[in-house]
Amino acid sequence: MIRAPAVPSITYPSQDEAALQALYRDFDADGLVPLWTEIGDLMPEQPNPSALPHVWRWRSILPLAERAGGLVPVGRGGERRAIALANPGLGGAPHATPTLWAAIQYLCPREDAPVHRHTQHAFRFVVEGEGVWTVVDGDPVAMRRGDFLLTPGWRFHGHHNVSDAPMAWIDGLDIPFARYTDSAFFEFGPDEVSDRSTPARSRAERLWAHPGLCPVSSAGERTDSSPITAYRWEHTDRALGEQLALEQDGYPGVVEPGHAAVRFINPTTGRDVMPTVRAEFHRLRAGTRTAVRREVGSSVFQVFSGTATVGVGEHEWTVDRGDLFVVPSWQPLTMTTGHGVDLFRFADSPIFERLRLDRVQVDGGAQ
Amino acid sequence: MIRAPAVPSITYPSQDEAALQALYRDFDADGLVPLWTEIGDLMPEQPNPSALPHVWRWRSILPLAERAGGLVPVGRGGERRAIALANPGLGGAPHATPTLWAAIQYLCPREDAPVHRHTQHAFRFVVEGEGVWTVVDGDPVAMRRGDFLLTPGWRFHGHHNVSDAPMAWIDGLDIPFARYTDSAFFEFGPDEVSDRSTPARSRAERLWAHPGLCPVSSAGERTDSSPITAYRWEHTDRALGEQLALEQDGYPGVVEPGHAAVRFINPTTGRDVMPTVRAEFHRLRAGTRTAVRREVGSSVFQVFSGTATVGVGEHEWTVDRGDLFVVPSWQPLTMTTGHGVDLFRFADSPIFERLRLDRVQVDGGAQ
Amino acid sequence: MIRAPAVPSITYPSQDEAALQALYRDFDADGLVPLWTEIGDLMPEQPNPSALPHVWRWRSILPLAERAGGLVPVGRGGERRAIALANPGLGGAPHATPTLWAAIQYLCPREDAPVHRHTQHAFRFVVEGEGVWTVVDGDPVAMRRGDFLLTPGWRFHGHHNVSDAPMAWIDGLDIPFARYTDSAFFEFGPDEVSDRSTPARSRAERLWAHPGLCPVSSAGERTDSSPITAYRWEHTDRALGEQLALEQDGYPGVVEPGHAAVRFINPTTGRDVMPTVRAEFHRLRAGTRTAVRREVGSSVFQVFSGTATVGVGEHEWTVDRGDLFVVPSWQPLTMTTGHGVDLFRFADSPIFERLRLDRVQVDGGAQ
Amino acid sequence: MIRAPAVPSITYPSQDEAALQALYRDFDADGLVPLWTEIGDLMPEQPNPSALPHVWRWRSILPLAERAGGLVPVGRGGERRAIALANPGLGGAPHATPTLWAAIQYLCPREDAPVHRHTQHAFRFVVEGEGVWTVVDGDPVAMRRGDFLLTPGWRFHGHHNVSDAPMAWIDGLDIPFARYTDSAFFEFGPDEVSDRSTPARSRAERLWAHPGLCPVSSAGERTDSSPITAYRWEHTDRALGEQLALEQDGYPGVVEPGHAAVRFINPTTGRDVMPTVRAEFHRLRAGTRTAVRREVGSSVFQVFSGTATVGVGEHEWTVDRGDLFVVPSWQPLTMTTGHGVDLFRFADSPIFERLRLDRVQVDGGAQ
Repeated sequence: MIRAPAVPSITYPSQDEAALQALYRDFDADGLVPLWTEIGDLMPEQPNPSALPHVWRWRSILPLAERAGGLVPVGRGGERRAIALANPGLGGAPHATPTLWAAIQYLCPREDAPVHRHTQHAFRFVVEGEGVWTVVDGDPVAMRRGDFLLTPGWRFHGHHNVSDAPMAWIDGLDIPFARYTDSAFFEFGPDEVSDRSTPARSRAERLWAHPGLCPVSSAGERTDSSPITAYRWEHTDRALGEQLALEQDGYPGVVEPGHAAVRFINPTTGRDVMPTVRAEFHRLRAGTRTAVRREVGSSVFQVFSGTATVGVGEHEWTVDRGDLFVVPSWQPLTMTTGHGVDLFRFADSPIFERLRLDRVQVDGGAQ
Repeated sequence: MIRAPAVPSITYPSQDEAALQALYRDFDADGLVPLWTEIGDLMPEQPNPSALPHVWRWRSILPLAERAGGLVPVGRGGERRAIALANPGLGGAPHATPTLWAAIQYLCPREDAPVHRHTQHAFRFVVEGEGVWTVVDGDPVAMRRGDFLLTPGWRFHGHHNVSDAPMAWIDGLDIPFARYTDSAFFEFGPDEVSDRSTPARSRAERLWAHPGLCPVSSAGERTDSSPITAYRWEHTDRALGEQLALEQDGYPGVVEPGHAAVRFINPTTGRDVMPTVRAEFHRLRAGTRTAVRREVGSSVFQVFSGTATVGVGEHEWTVDRGDLFVVPSWQPLTMTTGHGVDLFRFADSPIFERLRLDRVQVDGGAQ
Repeated sequence: MIRAPAVPSITYPSQDEAALQALYRDFDADGLVPLWTEIGDLMPEQPNPSALPHVWRWRSILPLAERAGGLVPVGRGGERRAIALANPGLGGAPHATPTLWAAIQYLCPREDAPVHRHTQHAFRFVVEGEGVWTVVDGDPVAMRRGDFLLTPGWRFHGHHNVSDAPMAWIDGLDIPFARYTDSAFFEFGPDEVSDRSTPARSRAERLWAHPGLCPVSSAGERTDSSPITAYRWEHTDRALGEQLALEQDGYPGVVEPGHAAVRFINPTTGRDVMPTVRAEFHRLRAGTRTAVRREVGSSVFQVFSGTATVGVGEHEWTVDRGDLFVVPSWQPLTMTTGHGVDLFRFADSPIFERLRLDRVQVDGGAQ
Repeated sequence: MIRAPAVPSITYPSQDEAALQALYRDFDADGLVPLWTEIGDLMPEQPNPSALPHVWRWRSILPLAERAGGLVPVGRGGERRAIALANPGLGGAPHATPTLWAAIQYLCPREDAPVHRHTQHAFRFVVEGEGVWTVVDGDPVAMRRGDFLLTPGWRFHGHHNVSDAPMAWIDGLDIPFARYTDSAFFEFGPDEVSDRSTPARSRAERLWAHPGLCPVSSAGERTDSSPITAYRWEHTDRALGEQLALEQDGYPGVVEPGHAAVRFINPTTGRDVMPTVRAEFHRLRAGTRTAVRREVGSSVFQVFSGTATVGVGEHEWTVDRGDLFVVPSWQPLTMTTGHGVDLFRFADSPIFERLRLDRVQVDGGAQ
């Protein structure tokens, strides 16, 4: 809310009160709204989000997904057995934040999710389990614990579970942003995925997931989204480990003491994996407390392993493996861990950076 | 809405109905929403905007602004005597479209509007009148009929009317987008503008408003927003006239037969004037009918002179000088004019282009 | 040359002298050259250009061009009656600097220069006279005193003099750079220009030479070179005048006290007019002395009006209308004027900026 | 050379011959050169390079380097025991092509090369041997067969051989381009490298050489050159192998049938490793013949393993492990291999692409 101004506030001559009310009625009849009665809400001194800091517990949502597995089929029309995190400040909409969708998706043994495509950008992150392949424009992509898997906008994709165990994972998309901006398109594909093979690595990875190398056949093409369909845990884990090892030897690389972090990037540009979505992995060494950080834009975190105490605005939670929590725009975030913690994070930051609306503050000092 | 799929829709075994309802209740208790019941609304086959095509008549809104002039003071706290166009599809919010604010602002003779700044990007467009100077970061900018005047984000600005006549104009901002994305900051400035001089041209224009020239002292700096604070009608008018003259001599330049248009640009980048706002001027020769065009993103038009018949989706209106109308995302637009028409347009297109979400279709054929 | 190192220099054991000479002969036979004997020349501590500071006097070169007018026809094969400034440090090559070509071109009354195109980027600058139209891809462009006229690479162009007076002007191109890098292509066109009309403004100007405006029909296209074929003196003059007027009122805009300057830019990008060529106009107020400036890359200046004393490295000249002088890379430049001076400048700076090799030093302090 | 034009060539009236000769003498006296006598050389129809296709044999140059090892010390002043390939078309200058330097560098057992820095961009490529660490801004980088190692401009660097065997490798730099453009700076550093440790991986690799990952602490910084100091053979080899394996399964990825290739890139931008240098690795399957390709700009190849028959312009050679050959601008190149071949390539292509002068033709058809 806008601060009460130091200057005397506006007073309207009492004799005009009736005229003013008549004016307001006439505004309303003509589809008009005055600024002066709304400005505090419309133009706050700093972001004042409706979305609330909130946590969803893996031990609660996973059993609900399992129940859905027994009751709700996956098929054309419903498309996916995905259950969205609905931020309590957003009026019941299935939006984790104003811009971001986060859902748990569940696939029963030997089950298929039909092929479709949409302009919304999507990814999957796997906190546990394996056995599902997502087939992206015909390329089968294995999903395993720790992997971060891309489905950039307008690529046909379906999933199938080749194992005898169910599998659950997290879907992240920019559905709320696309909905708000009325910018999305959707198309059905075949009912079944076209390639049921189960390679350990997708063809896209084999071409693109080499450090600092790109195929000459595609060199110079700058694609909106990353051509790497799968970012494997082994690489993420190693990169995080190296940052902490370098720190211990006295060299730079970590974000702050005890805090390693990598960003998933599009190798054709060095920028974020998709135009609207940032994804990162954070590792806090045992005994670490992060600085208090606030930034324009919203984030969702999922604990991958370990435990942390997380403060977001005036909320504080202890979070554990699989738990998801939301950091609304400009809410201060700090994390503390006793025994160490690994966290996956995704955010809408590219929207703000591309529109030059980004702002970050760490420990009260602007960066 | 999503099309009813050709495949049989999902049927739930009746014995599970009670279990399903229990599941949905438990979802709700845990802050979860299933995708499969919402997907048609969340992921439509094409944009399905809540905002409606709508027109506001100058002959209605100007008298309301005048009445406000007699009843509502302008001062610190209320900040501006601005009355916003509220799209009837947006639940009473003072938003012309999901992203754009459009308002009529009214300043009485010899009146001041106090200085403030905000990260929201703003412009003014003058359909009639003169006598007000807007002072942008200390630089006085005259406002005259046909001029397009910028106040990019985070610049201090106030207005003052030096004449004995009131003046009304249109304000355009990205307030709804900033509000939705929780990205805006606001700050009060001095109560009065610092420089009450009334030059015909601002200092910014004197430095920057020369065709194809930039000051060497700033050369190479690429600013987010245009350094040109005022785009004068004489230049806009001449550029439009030249396009039609070239067309008559058989040379390219117009958008389509009989349809000239210029875009206001940031000379340091060749891109739109501000990161979230596009502004253009269109001129239709007498007897012209435009192609049917739809694009992702929303626009507001104001008739500057002449008359046209405008079709937006299933709506059709005849519009006249000062009238404003809204084109929601992906709604087909066509315009016809008997005697010719000049229109100012602003839109949120840069948001979509920067995020690679732009899509345009003309007469059914994708461009 | 490389500085004599503080450490003792290398001494070769005398008994090896013969073996060393044999080795050097064997190097030579195998097409090899050792670094250690050449390093001072190859890798100097700072740029050590072969090109020399030099001046060419208008009063000398114009009469020579006139004599050529009487002796040398213009036609297919020779293509142009252009006489190049050959830097005395560059071994007789017709290169003003290692990268830049500068020539006086002369067209007799009613004479034509045939149509061709080449990938080398070209411009013309007119220090006096008029009556010639250059026809660029079919668009006739009038040439008048003070105008700066573009022929970006690979555009067909020819010239014709419609008047009863001869006309001379300056051509600038990147011929030496294209030659050195073996990157140029050339093609003959028709013997005569296709459009002999003589409009005051070219079609390209009518579309593009409006401040801060671009045609919507081409909006969003970022062209390598500027679509503005002619930058007219009236705009350049006004922009320079405004900078000095703003300075007198206490506002920023000039490069340094008494020194106004504008750069010609490509309005589709805000960058230089062509990928390899920068062009600027400088005006020094009476009594001004510029700072000493050195930069990587070379420049050619032509005095447009007035007089100045120019120091380049250890050279100093008094220059007058029409005189041309060269500033090699990293040579310090300073200019002093008693009664004021206007100068046109072109340079190869975009090459260095695009390759991140640019460096500038003003008065000893890096900028 | 320019084609003889179809139109009659220019004939000069004989009576003017003396006057013409006098004119040419006066041109010369005034530092002027006419275009019309030089145009064929200055503006050829297509690139007509002075540099010649040429090959240097490893079996010849390695023994010469060894002899230099016994005769020439490495120390301050001479700086490096590097022996440059001098293109026979370039007048004895130590330039492999007009823009590129290629040299064999040789370090005796336990020998050091002193620390310096220069704005010229450098890399090393190792065709055989190991035991040397190059220390780049204090970070020790191991050099092993197949590795491609960067020293971007202005980084202090020295080398030291920790083994009891000598080591030779190839240096590539843009020395000729920097020299021609007068753009280079050079600075001595300490006589010895600061960190004599011998880690298997450099700190830069540990931070940056992970596929699709970047440290959050540096995310968003776009550096001119790659932060990856070493591109290891194991990754290059695997990426090439995957392309050929994908081809055999019927999937895209190779440049053309039987021809795999990767480009080394800067992960912060997805562009070439350094602003002036492209580096690639090519693998031809046994029995492959490449298309005939010509491009603007020059290249140097070194055979890493296997054998090929290489045609460049009118030259043809059979090349073997370690052999180096040069492809001048616009010379057609084709390669054939019986048993398969691996080749390292570097080129000046980024210069042309950044200046929009690039052009490629494959098998006569423009791409």
